[in-house]
Amino acid sequence: MQRFLNNPDDIVDETVAGFVKAHRDLVKLDPSNPRVVVARNAPVKGKVGIVTGGGSGHEPAFIGYAGRNMVDAVAVGELFSSPTAKSFIDAIKAADGGAGVAVLYGNYAGDNMNVKMARRMAAKDGIEVATVVANDDVCSAPLDERAKRRGVAGEIFMWKIGGAKAAEGASLSEVVASAQRAIDACRSVGVGLGPCTLPAVGHPNFLIEPGKMEIGIGHHGEPGTRLEDLKTANEVADDMVRIVLDDHDLPAGTEVAVLVSGLGATPVNELYVLYDRIEGQIAARGLSVHRAYVGNYFTSLEMVGATVTVLALDDELKRLLDVETACAGF
Amino acid sequence: MQRFLNNPDDIVDETVAGFVKAHRDLVKLDPSNPRVVVARNAPVKGKVGIVTGGGSGHEPAFIGYAGRNMVDAVAVGELFSSPTAKSFIDAIKAADGGAGVAVLYGNYAGDNMNVKMARRMAAKDGIEVATVVANDDVCSAPLDERAKRRGVAGEIFMWKIGGAKAAEGASLSEVVASAQRAIDACRSVGVGLGPCTLPAVGHPNFLIEPGKMEIGIGHHGEPGTRLEDLKTANEVADDMVRIVLDDHDLPAGTEVAVLVSGLGATPVNELYVLYDRIEGQIAARGLSVHRAYVGNYFTSLEMVGATVTVLALDDELKRLLDVETACAGF
Repeated sequence: MQRFLNNPDDIVDETVAGFVKAHRDLVKLDPSNPRVVVARNAPVKGKVGIVTGGGSGHEPAFIGYAGRNMVDAVAVGELFSSPTAKSFIDAIKAADGGAGVAVLYGNYAGDNMNVKMARRMAAKDGIEVATVVANDDVCSAPLDERAKRRGVAGEIFMWKIGGAKAAEGASLSEVVASAQRAIDACRSVGVGLGPCTLPAVGHPNFLIEPGKMEIGIGHHGEPGTRLEDLKTANEVADDMVRIVLDDHDLPAGTEVAVLVSGLGATPVNELYVLYDRIEGQIAARGLSVHRAYVGNYFTSLEMVGATVTVLALDDELKRLLDVETACAGF
Repeated sequence: MQRFLNNPDDIVDETVAGFVKAHRDLVKLDPSNPRVVVARNAPVKGKVGIVTGGGSGHEPAFIGYAGRNMVDAVAVGELFSSPTAKSFIDAIKAADGGAGVAVLYGNYAGDNMNVKMARRMAAKDGIEVATVVANDDVCSAPLDERAKRRGVAGEIFMWKIGGAKAAEGASLSEVVASAQRAIDACRSVGVGLGPCTLPAVGHPNFLIEPGKMEIGIGHHGEPGTRLEDLKTANEVADDMVRIVLDDHDLPAGTEVAVLVSGLGATPVNELYVLYDRIEGQIAARGLSVHRAYVGNYFTSLEMVGATVTVLALDDELKRLLDVETACAGF
């Protein structure tokens, strides 16, 4: 492995330590749990707390979205593994400003279980917790089984909207309603061109032969819906736009936000090559892009590939998306 | 090649087109030259214009640093090739607000030649141009031949400082003096773990065997000073800090800014693993980190590796570094 590594067992601790050092103007470590990263200004008294969490290896997700007007506390898991229930409850406590806590997380079995346990613990401590489960990954289940779909980069929009709503002083139920509307309005798709390797495992988590690509792949190498010959960037972009927009029929004139994320080892210029075509295809459907994000926003170690997320905006989502934030991920 | 590509000849046009679409709130294309990206608010009447330029394939450099209080216009070259003199002069014209233009660029033969030609053309048009040539790459020549050194990620600090000084209303000679002091106060080093491939060429630009790494490598695969067995992340970080700080003897108590950039295919979490150690080593020398940047700031297509840049701050550099900017690269 051509990687910058020490002992594979220490990767997460070292990543979190480096992150907190680099961004100490934005975040701090929870004093009682080194797997909880807390926004520097959290908890804010009287504000609904925003919590998320997930496995490591997706940097800048999840820790990079802790910050002002964003996520108040992030529970950090091992590489590609859910944070513990203890880390989720510690994150909830760290985010609690007395107005309840919204846990906005992705639909994975481990996260579901551990958030559920943490929620029970929070109830004992008198902290009101509500949850929104992101399920924006179109290829992970059919539309009529949307509750089975995984959460991927659409989570970033969910956090952004939820965080902005909470910053406005909204109640827990209002925050959760806006975050739910945000993720309901999101569709994502991933394309994989190359695998990644968990250092402690030492071999790739899946294989893609040269000249092939996998459409609909997940953030941990979960298989996609199609293994195909590698096409041109334009053909891939067309396919990705078709997948997300065929799943989400939007009336002409709808404004959208678009997020194109590399999966870790895709050169930045190729993401712009994709975006060039993606925006054209979106426009061809009569939609217009209000705001675009292109870069490494939600990665999978050194996987080669990209994800596209489209968020359909309404007046409230647009207003909340435009609220200024301070976090390392953006 | 497992890459998102169309016709290799179109990569730069597509990258620039995608970039300008994604960041139209920050930049626009020069109407007369599609290889010149201009800050949306440029030219600013009465302000010194800031211009840079360089080869493509280093995204978000160079175009990502066009924006408010940063670079006014960027000349865009082919992959790993200097922009033409025509693109440099068009960038100079686009940035010219009547107070002269500072061209802040990196020390490469093609760029030196083309900037020189553009400067002559500008003189004919009555535009006063001054230049600063970045030479922060420690391993590219000995300290007593510093003028031979290449410019690498320290250029970002040079642009930041020059851009902020110009935004304050300083004169051309003052802007150039501050930008020169910034690059004089910068030292950088790169470590390569894997090569990259120019799509039109179709094979890697150099080779690094598995288990090896190249210390002091350039942004285009220019050979480093040492080919070594791949060490742990901590050992690599120690080596990088030693190289930059042994070259730049700083008194204890000096505040520095640190930029750790991936070269394109290095996972984000590994950059934080490196940073964790780097900050510790800097602190061990009695220096303190005022501000850190960790991410993909100056890349080399899909090269695996990282660069470290240390900028020694004084009161003015610190003040200018902290001026707010709006650009896609940060």
